[in-house]
Amino acid sequence: MPKSRLEAFSDGVIAIVITIMVLELRVPHGDDVRALGAVLPVFLSYVLSFVYLAIYWNNHHHLLHTASTVTGGMLWANLHLLFWLSLVPFATGWLGENHFAAGPTGVYGVVLLLAAVAYWLLQQRIIAAQGPGSLLRRAVGGDWKGKLSPILYALAIALAFVWHWASLGLYVLVALLWLIPDRRIERALRGQEP
Amino acid sequence: MPKSRLEAFSDGVIAIVITIMVLELRVPHGDDVRALGAVLPVFLSYVLSFVYLAIYWNNHHHLLHTASTVTGGMLWANLHLLFWLSLVPFATGWLGENHFAAGPTGVYGVVLLLAAVAYWLLQQRIIAAQGPGSLLRRAVGGDWKGKLSPILYALAIALAFVWHWASLGLYVLVALLWLIPDRRIERALRGQEP
Amino acid sequence: MPKSRLEAFSDGVIAIVITIMVLELRVPHGDDVRALGAVLPVFLSYVLSFVYLAIYWNNHHHLLHTASTVTGGMLWANLHLLFWLSLVPFATGWLGENHFAAGPTGVYGVVLLLAAVAYWLLQQRIIAAQGPGSLLRRAVGGDWKGKLSPILYALAIALAFVWHWASLGLYVLVALLWLIPDRRIERALRGQEP
Amino acid sequence: MPKSRLEAFSDGVIAIVITIMVLELRVPHGDDVRALGAVLPVFLSYVLSFVYLAIYWNNHHHLLHTASTVTGGMLWANLHLLFWLSLVPFATGWLGENHFAAGPTGVYGVVLLLAAVAYWLLQQRIIAAQGPGSLLRRAVGGDWKGKLSPILYALAIALAFVWHWASLGLYVLVALLWLIPDRRIERALRGQEP
Repeated sequence: MPKSRLEAFSDGVIAIVITIMVLELRVPHGDDVRALGAVLPVFLSYVLSFVYLAIYWNNHHHLLHTASTVTGGMLWANLHLLFWLSLVPFATGWLGENHFAAGPTGVYGVVLLLAAVAYWLLQQRIIAAQGPGSLLRRAVGGDWKGKLSPILYALAIALAFVWHWASLGLYVLVALLWLIPDRRIERALRGQEP
Repeated sequence: MPKSRLEAFSDGVIAIVITIMVLELRVPHGDDVRALGAVLPVFLSYVLSFVYLAIYWNNHHHLLHTASTVTGGMLWANLHLLFWLSLVPFATGWLGENHFAAGPTGVYGVVLLLAAVAYWLLQQRIIAAQGPGSLLRRAVGGDWKGKLSPILYALAIALAFVWHWASLGLYVLVALLWLIPDRRIERALRGQEP
Repeated sequence: MPKSRLEAFSDGVIAIVITIMVLELRVPHGDDVRALGAVLPVFLSYVLSFVYLAIYWNNHHHLLHTASTVTGGMLWANLHLLFWLSLVPFATGWLGENHFAAGPTGVYGVVLLLAAVAYWLLQQRIIAAQGPGSLLRRAVGGDWKGKLSPILYALAIALAFVWHWASLGLYVLVALLWLIPDRRIERALRGQEP
Repeated sequence: MPKSRLEAFSDGVIAIVITIMVLELRVPHGDDVRALGAVLPVFLSYVLSFVYLAIYWNNHHHLLHTASTVTGGMLWANLHLLFWLSLVPFATGWLGENHFAAGPTGVYGVVLLLAAVAYWLLQQRIIAAQGPGSLLRRAVGGDWKGKLSPILYALAIALAFVWHWASLGLYVLVALLWLIPDRRIERALRGQEP
């Protein structure tokens, strides 16, 4: 399978996931500002999830950029990642409709955690396919963000049932961490291409 | 990131937004013409939003056409634009289901205004990336449409709570302004390529 | 605008329209065959519309294949066609949920008729852009299918309020007419490329 | 029609089908774990269907990879396959919402069976287009998976009304059979390209 088709399929799925998520923003029945206020929690959770999916799309591109061939293992690791990302609209809708209650806050973190694990698995598959001297392995280096995020998600899941606002704060924090652009891969690529 | 992938992702999101918007046109329960009449306001707001999204798709293409590289800033400015465009189906459904009431009419204008601001920010990012002597800067020139539209949207938002039909008239007017094709970029490009 | 982006956007919209149409097939509440029987009319109308959209996708490809440049007029004629095609899921859902009653049968024909007119307008735009000696003009030649279809749709719309089964028969007939592959364009292209 | 457009359209439809399927996972009304438990059957059927669609996407790619030209027959055989795949979300939602009851279990198998038949028809079309000495014919060889699957689906459909858990076990079994990567086509291609 050429890499371009894998990228196009992944982009397609992420574009659809990011867009159908807005269908959870149900049109309110009244026509005044109070009716609009009722969808505010769903809107806020939509904003958070939009940012997460945009980060995944962006980083996914960088990740695949380093891969030269597509192995069967990478293909299924990629589909596994898309599976967890496809659950984001569900988790987002449940979170928003219950005004960030404990249960949905925890489940939202579980989906983020499993997506992060799936992303890490895909990264490992690409590194394995590149063999020793893998460009990607050098690029991710210590990979402190990739290692810190799952820990913060796990912490947020546990905190959800104690003080769920702290969980939500952690989700926002991790998103901000990733919004700061990851220049490692770009730098490693530049080092490669003189 | 190659420009083609940014274009393909944006096209994908806009194609999905323009298409799922039709899901707000709920199938009426009766089978006579009166049942159909009940969805007429949603249909009319669908037509207006379809035209707006078509204009954005068209202008977005012209805009990216002038960009030679994709910077991180452009990428996020583009995602920011897609975010506001993704809210158009919600605003459209709310507008139609409330028969163009004041509140939804104002909110529809807010979404259009913020999309216009996001478009302007993306344009500034591309101009900045092109440095002095930017082709795009020359192409947009005085950019009276880009400057007039937000003013008209802001006026329409204020008018929504006074005389909402005037707001709707302004939305239609701005759409018509943009339907007249913008030959500036094409002309500048032609001047460039002898 | 390069032709490839116009094709990709059109393909995207048609792929989404053909797929979200299945969302009108609501999951029935019971678990027995009778519950399934209740969605049979929606299923049958889904099959018909799937075939129509597949025909449009196929013919649309042939049409654009002959175009060498994309003019602004072609672009808007194409969006106009996509607009009517985007209404097919709505018309299909209404037709099926009302068990092919007169009103929805007529409205279904109106959407098909306007899509056919939009297709014809797009064809005219491409012929006009090709100037005298247009390859497409020669290819469509007498274009009896393109001329007969709108007449049959109009007849079916009128018949809907008299004997709606005859209208449905006409819709099936037109679909069958188009399923027989249109070799004219292919033949003209082959004549062109020795 | 160039093969790339057929692939892109098929990928688009499969990406949309796999993604809108998650819309059947309706956001539960409560906010506790019990509310989440209520969507567990739909979730499990979603996982199964996600895997099936991923397998189809993957195998579909391999299949088209061997085709050199796109004939009208292949095009319609491909649309026929997409038609049955587009019904997977409906069958999945009905299966999950009825907690794997007999009727929906049988219907799920019918959709899988007809998709398998459509896949086989597409394969035959490509083999026929390749003429004698068809690369694909050699690649699929005995094609025991392709022959066994429909038999197991048929068995599962019959069993659904006797012991529906056995049917579900068979669906899982067939998915596992296909998850084991099919190296035949890759091997035949490698043999071809020295």
